[in-house]
Amino acid sequence: MAKRSLVTLTTDFGTSDPYVGAMKGMILRHCPQADIVDITHEVPPQQVLTGAFTLAHTAPYFPEGTLHVVVVDPGVGTKRNILVGQLGGQYFLFPDNGVISLLRQVLPLQALVMVRNERVLDNPAVSPTFHGRDVFGPLAGKILSGLDINDLGPTPASYKLLDLPTPQDESDAILGWVIHIDRFGNLVSNITYEQARRRWKDLQTLSVDCNGQAVGPLRNTYADVEVHQPVALFNSMGYLEVAVNQARASETFDATLGAKIRLREQLAIDKPKPKSAGDDNTVPPEPFSG
Amino acid sequence: MAKRSLVTLTTDFGTSDPYVGAMKGMILRHCPQADIVDITHEVPPQQVLTGAFTLAHTAPYFPEGTLHVVVVDPGVGTKRNILVGQLGGQYFLFPDNGVISLLRQVLPLQALVMVRNERVLDNPAVSPTFHGRDVFGPLAGKILSGLDINDLGPTPASYKLLDLPTPQDESDAILGWVIHIDRFGNLVSNITYEQARRRWKDLQTLSVDCNGQAVGPLRNTYADVEVHQPVALFNSMGYLEVAVNQARASETFDATLGAKIRLREQLAIDKPKPKSAGDDNTVPPEPFSG
Amino acid sequence: MAKRSLVTLTTDFGTSDPYVGAMKGMILRHCPQADIVDITHEVPPQQVLTGAFTLAHTAPYFPEGTLHVVVVDPGVGTKRNILVGQLGGQYFLFPDNGVISLLRQVLPLQALVMVRNERVLDNPAVSPTFHGRDVFGPLAGKILSGLDINDLGPTPASYKLLDLPTPQDESDAILGWVIHIDRFGNLVSNITYEQARRRWKDLQTLSVDCNGQAVGPLRNTYADVEVHQPVALFNSMGYLEVAVNQARASETFDATLGAKIRLREQLAIDKPKPKSAGDDNTVPPEPFSG
Repeated sequence: MAKRSLVTLTTDFGTSDPYVGAMKGMILRHCPQADIVDITHEVPPQQVLTGAFTLAHTAPYFPEGTLHVVVVDPGVGTKRNILVGQLGGQYFLFPDNGVISLLRQVLPLQALVMVRNERVLDNPAVSPTFHGRDVFGPLAGKILSGLDINDLGPTPASYKLLDLPTPQDESDAILGWVIHIDRFGNLVSNITYEQARRRWKDLQTLSVDCNGQAVGPLRNTYADVEVHQPVALFNSMGYLEVAVNQARASETFDATLGAKIRLREQLAIDKPKPKSAGDDNTVPPEPFSG
Repeated sequence: MAKRSLVTLTTDFGTSDPYVGAMKGMILRHCPQADIVDITHEVPPQQVLTGAFTLAHTAPYFPEGTLHVVVVDPGVGTKRNILVGQLGGQYFLFPDNGVISLLRQVLPLQALVMVRNERVLDNPAVSPTFHGRDVFGPLAGKILSGLDINDLGPTPASYKLLDLPTPQDESDAILGWVIHIDRFGNLVSNITYEQARRRWKDLQTLSVDCNGQAVGPLRNTYADVEVHQPVALFNSMGYLEVAVNQARASETFDATLGAKIRLREQLAIDKPKPKSAGDDNTVPPEPFSG
Repeated sequence: MAKRSLVTLTTDFGTSDPYVGAMKGMILRHCPQADIVDITHEVPPQQVLTGAFTLAHTAPYFPEGTLHVVVVDPGVGTKRNILVGQLGGQYFLFPDNGVISLLRQVLPLQALVMVRNERVLDNPAVSPTFHGRDVFGPLAGKILSGLDINDLGPTPASYKLLDLPTPQDESDAILGWVIHIDRFGNLVSNITYEQARRRWKDLQTLSVDCNGQAVGPLRNTYADVEVHQPVALFNSMGYLEVAVNQARASETFDATLGAKIRLREQLAIDKPKPKSAGDDNTVPPEPFSG
């Protein structure tokens, strides 16, 4: 079978306006055999960090040679650069605003050029407000049709990266915060599995708090707790996540973006003692168990 | 033209998180020539019944040989089985939670296997929380690439079906309830055309009530009544539906999932008498006509 | 590479019901090699004008030979015609309700037929409420598979066009109104670049009001003003647009569909005088600058 011309789209265009359709049209006009795959068009408007998060957790799973087009571009119409990168055998077309920051942590950067080709950028028909249709679309089509990315322009002296906050080490804990809330209401923090493993040998002895409330010990999956009970685990993206089995943790913990998540060593109080004659039964109840 | 590798996706992942993109990537990584068709990613979280409803009313229209992947999977990470079925010449990959219940009423079951192949399931890289990416995606790609489903595992002794409530026969009526409200606000009940036909020869003599309010006689299409008037009909899926022409029946009838729909023989009062000298004009007005 | 069978979909079906999936299935059943591209399924229910707007600003960018299927069809089940048009080398399948009105202003109409072929329309299995699945889908598949559109029926004596309101000329201004609010909250008016150019030679001397409030002089792009400042420009579709850089103009100006947009010659008061000794500094502040 012939090699395909796979191209994915990650934008903040939404799906109710003509923007996505116009960009798809221009890709196909410049590469009629393009196979377009929607990643998402629901990045919140101009939220480069969410675009970076989406890209890093989708693109690495695609086959070699795929072209990924990312248009989350608050600087459209300014002098910001447009870049084409090769990472891990795949290609990426994106505005130079840091949207590649997280991807770069998971795929090796193999080549990078800034688009300077005047035939692309100085077209008088280029709208200053819709580069998705007038620049990214045609460029994507041309790259898919075989245009050598080295003909687009030189390697830039530098490129933008987001200033990403990192979790803080405390005496008996790591303090992070919620960086993404998914459609299930799951709270995704910026504490990574690697970071936890560097500090503790046995993660099974750790507990998690969210917004100052106890979630419970680290688990493996949602179903390790009863339905509607809270659970903390390292999720499929390698981040510490707080969830509620078949319900919305964002509501249970009244948590929004930026809410504090603490991964900590267990206190004596976390481990219910076996009952004995002398017990006065004043051990505080486990939250959410009642 | 070569046979295509058509695969459809029906999930509760939404479209704003990286989940759909990651699954698409893994399908394409395992079958670069796959042609992915989105059915929906908007099944409400963990609502297996809605997934079953969607599958039954979409998959039968696809060409022979299509693979349908359904990931509405509240049991992810538990010991629930993953099944591959052949129904009506098409293929279905889904968790064993009853999501196939309605499809099975419209397409004949030709083969069924439970996935036991250790190379698929015992991969240490399989996340216990995201089988869409780590199990369903790769499996779909491999099946599209020609993997014989009989190599995946044995036929299960049994498989799960949803406990679907059925409408009740009353003395002069069938009582059902709303099982789906579509984006137009149309109220879809679980009373089927077949069930009505088994009971009454002439459906044109029947009337419909919704939430205790009269909708009117059975009609054929929305435009059989004036704009903003209520209408009852057997819809394109064979279900009794209550709608309002170019408006939202869910608002007009203040109805939610589970609202009662009654298909009944017409009362004398339903049929306006021809006016005569003796008429006192106290016949109650038809609702919504004023 | 073989010619593709490209087909785009523009509907008001939403993405949470089985409607889109069923229609895609029927297209593929009648043309297994079809390549389906989603334009949008989020046209507001029965809003033919929004469908027309979407079509006009997406279809022209697609390659020659593409088939565009538009199902925004409040008259489904009535005797309204179904049309197939050829415009600008592309094909369009749509209900005769005016949804082609804006497209026709940008692409030349080359051929038009009304579907009369009884094998398509008199199929007893055609649901009167879901022509997307039972008429448009199969028809699209057959056209993609090579059916000559002249075999479908005759050229109609006439076809429907929307009664589109046009902006009004005033003594020193053009008065239009908001016809679309996009996902970024940008306010798109019906005043076009061509109309402004016919009246004024130098657009740089003009200012814009929205809902009676001053927006400021005409600019080229969002980033011509500071973040969170309002800006007026002719957008990528050629319409006068009021935006707020990286925020929602619809909120800033409390504007909804139909809000008044005025493109006018600048008043003396619009141009801040250079300061001089005699200045009393009572020039009114520019709105939104404080």
